[in-house]
Amino acid sequence: MNRPVAAPTRNGRVKLPGHVLDVTAPLALDCGVELAPYTIAYQTYGKLNADRSNAILVCHALTGDQYVAEPHPVTGKPGWWDILAGPGKVLDTNRYFLICANVLGGCMGSTGPAEINPATGEPWGLSFPVITVADMVRAQKQLLDHLGIKQLFCVTGGSMGGMQVLQWAASYPERVFAAVPIATAARHSAQNIAFHEVGRQAIMADPEWCSGNYQPQNRNPSRGLAVARMAAHITYLSEAALHRKFGRNLQDRNALTFGFDADFQVENYLRHQGITFVERFDANSYLYITRACDYFDLAAEHGGALANAFRGCPTRFCVISFTSDWLYPTRESREIVHALNAAAANVSFVEVATDKGHDAFLLDEPELHATLRGFLDGCAQHRGLPGA
Amino acid sequence: MNRPVAAPTRNGRVKLPGHVLDVTAPLALDCGVELAPYTIAYQTYGKLNADRSNAILVCHALTGDQYVAEPHPVTGKPGWWDILAGPGKVLDTNRYFLICANVLGGCMGSTGPAEINPATGEPWGLSFPVITVADMVRAQKQLLDHLGIKQLFCVTGGSMGGMQVLQWAASYPERVFAAVPIATAARHSAQNIAFHEVGRQAIMADPEWCSGNYQPQNRNPSRGLAVARMAAHITYLSEAALHRKFGRNLQDRNALTFGFDADFQVENYLRHQGITFVERFDANSYLYITRACDYFDLAAEHGGALANAFRGCPTRFCVISFTSDWLYPTRESREIVHALNAAAANVSFVEVATDKGHDAFLLDEPELHATLRGFLDGCAQHRGLPGA
Repeated sequence: MNRPVAAPTRNGRVKLPGHVLDVTAPLALDCGVELAPYTIAYQTYGKLNADRSNAILVCHALTGDQYVAEPHPVTGKPGWWDILAGPGKVLDTNRYFLICANVLGGCMGSTGPAEINPATGEPWGLSFPVITVADMVRAQKQLLDHLGIKQLFCVTGGSMGGMQVLQWAASYPERVFAAVPIATAARHSAQNIAFHEVGRQAIMADPEWCSGNYQPQNRNPSRGLAVARMAAHITYLSEAALHRKFGRNLQDRNALTFGFDADFQVENYLRHQGITFVERFDANSYLYITRACDYFDLAAEHGGALANAFRGCPTRFCVISFTSDWLYPTRESREIVHALNAAAANVSFVEVATDKGHDAFLLDEPELHATLRGFLDGCAQHRGLPGA
Repeated sequence: MNRPVAAPTRNGRVKLPGHVLDVTAPLALDCGVELAPYTIAYQTYGKLNADRSNAILVCHALTGDQYVAEPHPVTGKPGWWDILAGPGKVLDTNRYFLICANVLGGCMGSTGPAEINPATGEPWGLSFPVITVADMVRAQKQLLDHLGIKQLFCVTGGSMGGMQVLQWAASYPERVFAAVPIATAARHSAQNIAFHEVGRQAIMADPEWCSGNYQPQNRNPSRGLAVARMAAHITYLSEAALHRKFGRNLQDRNALTFGFDADFQVENYLRHQGITFVERFDANSYLYITRACDYFDLAAEHGGALANAFRGCPTRFCVISFTSDWLYPTRESREIVHALNAAAANVSFVEVATDKGHDAFLLDEPELHATLRGFLDGCAQHRGLPGA
C-alpha cells in the first residue's frame, strides 16, 4: 500500500516516497507492551523472482533509513549504500530484490516516538514503549510475511544493522539463508553505552527537549541533538582517518585566530555533521534507538552463552570487521565467529584492513565489496539463483 | 603573599588556601595581548633548600589545580596526586620542594575568565584573551623568578601537564634540570581537537551560557558543562577499564527497566562525573583551557621540526606513556622521544603496561611510581641532592 507517510524535519513534515505496511495485529514487545496498530515504512529495489527466493533484507544503522539506493527525500543526498546497491553493483538489483525498512522507533515513516499515537491523537513522545533490536526484527518479520517471503536469501547490514542481522539468525534461523553482519557486536560494550549516554544527556540537557514533549509545543532540541551527533561521529572515524582528512589544518585561514570560532577544519566538519543531522532526525527517536542498541546482548538472551543463540542455525554467515574500527573492534566480531564455530555453524570471517574506522562499511572499501560480492555469488550458487 | 582568593562554584565563591602572586608587569601572550595585572594562585609542599636546587614544579592537567597533596578546598577530596606526593612518597616532600600553580585561564585563583577584569570591574568572561600552553608556562616562570629559583630540579605532569613540561624544556631549557612528561603529546591530534570541540559545543549550546556572560546574570551552564565532562571522561579511560569496572552491570536493579533512567552502572557513573565536576569548575575556563590544548603544537612553533624545540637542551628527560592510553597514545610519546634523540638530548622512555587508560597517571600504577622514583633518585645524585 502507498498511503503517504511523512518525516518530521526542522522545516515541517516532508512526504516520504516508498511503501507503507499498516499492521493491526499487536506486536509483542520485549518490554511487555502489545503495540497495535503500527506502521512499517519500507523501500524495495529490484524485482522479487517467481520463487521469492532472491530477497536481500538490508538493515540500516542507528541513524540510517530505508533509502538505501536512491536520493534521501529530506537531504537529497545519495542513498546511504548507493555505493554498494544498484544495477550491476555488489547488491545487484538486476539479480536481487532488496528490501529495507525503517526500524521501529525510527523517524522515517515507521512507528516511533515522533509519530501520532492513534489512541491519543498526540505524538507518542516518551510514552512510546522502549523497543529493542529484537522488536525491530519482529516488525521486519511481519513485513516479510506480508510480502510472502518465506526465506530471505540474505540479510545484511553494518553497525546496528549488523545487530539486526545477528538477531534475525537467532530468532528466525530457517528464514535466513545467508547472513552478513558487518562492523558489529553481539552486545553493546560499556564504552558503547557510555558514548550513547553522553548523546542522550546532551539531548535531555537541552531545554527545548521539554521532557520529550517538544513536538506539541513546536519546539526542537536541535542544539542538544547536534552535540549528540558530534560526539557519536567521532566514534565512527578512526584517529588515522581524522588525521588524514584534517590533521591540524586550519579552516579558511592562515593562522590561529585566538578565539572560539572553528579554527581547525575538524571543528568545522564536526559542526557541519551536527547541523545537517538535526535537519533529518528526531531527537526522541535518537533516544529510543540508542537505547535499543545499549540493551542488545544476544548472549544474555540465551542463558549467557552466545553459541546458544545459533544452535542448529542453518544460515551461512560471513562476518566482516575493520581493523581500524574502535567502536565495534575486530575482537567483538571474533567473539561472534567463535560462538558460531562453537555452534558448528557455517561461517567465514574477514577482517578488512582499512584505516577508515567504523564508517568503512559505508565507504568505497574495495576489500569489503569484493568479500561481499564473492560471498553472495557463492551463496547464490548454493541457493540455485542464476549467476550475474 | 597570602591575599585571599576564591573559586567560583555553583554555591558561591569558596575561599582558597595557599599562596598568591600578584604580578603587575605585563605578560606578553601569544595572541598579542599584554596581560596586566595578573594573579597566580599556587601551593607548595616541603621545604626549599638553601641552594634552591630541590624544587619540583608539578604541572596540572586540564581540570586539575594546585591542590596536589592536600584535600581539595571545594570537594574535600584528596589532592589529585596525593598517591604520589607527600612525605616519603615518590615526590618526597621530605626531600623536594613541590610547587604547583593553577594555570593561567584556570578557575582556582589564577587569572582566568571567571575572575574580575580590573579594568572593568566585571568578570572577564569571553573578553579574556585566548591563552596557550606557552602562556601558562610564561606565567609559571614569573612565579619561579619571584621564588628565586634559578633552576628547577624537575618539572613533571601528565596530559596537559605534560605539555607544559615539554614547553618548559623548549622555552627555558637552562632552568630545567630534569623533565618528566607523562601521557602527553607534542601536539593535539585531530581526534583530540574533535573531542574538545564537542565539549565546547555542549557548553555553548546551553542557553544558561548566555554567550559567555553568565556570571553577571547569576546563571550557570552546568548542564552543558556536565555533558562536556561526560564526553571527555570516556576518553580518559580505556575500553578495558570501563569493561572491568562496569561491563554491562545494572545499577541497583535486577532487570532492564525499559526506560531512560540509568539502567547501567556506567551510565550512573558518567552522570555522577558530570554532576560533581560542575560543582568545582567554571564553564568558560573549560573553553579556554581546552583551546590552549588544541593550539599546542610544539613542532609548529619551531619551524615544523619537533627536534628543533630541543636543540642544545641540557635537560634530562624521562618520557612515560601507557599502553592503553588512546587519548595520547604511546606513538605520540615515541615522537617526542625520537625528536629528543634527534636533538641528542638525554632521554629515557618507559611505556607502562596498564589497562587503565589515560587516567593511569593519576592512579595507583606501581610501574609508573617505580619509574618516576628511580629517575628522580638518579637525577638527584647527578644534581648533588642528598639521598632519601
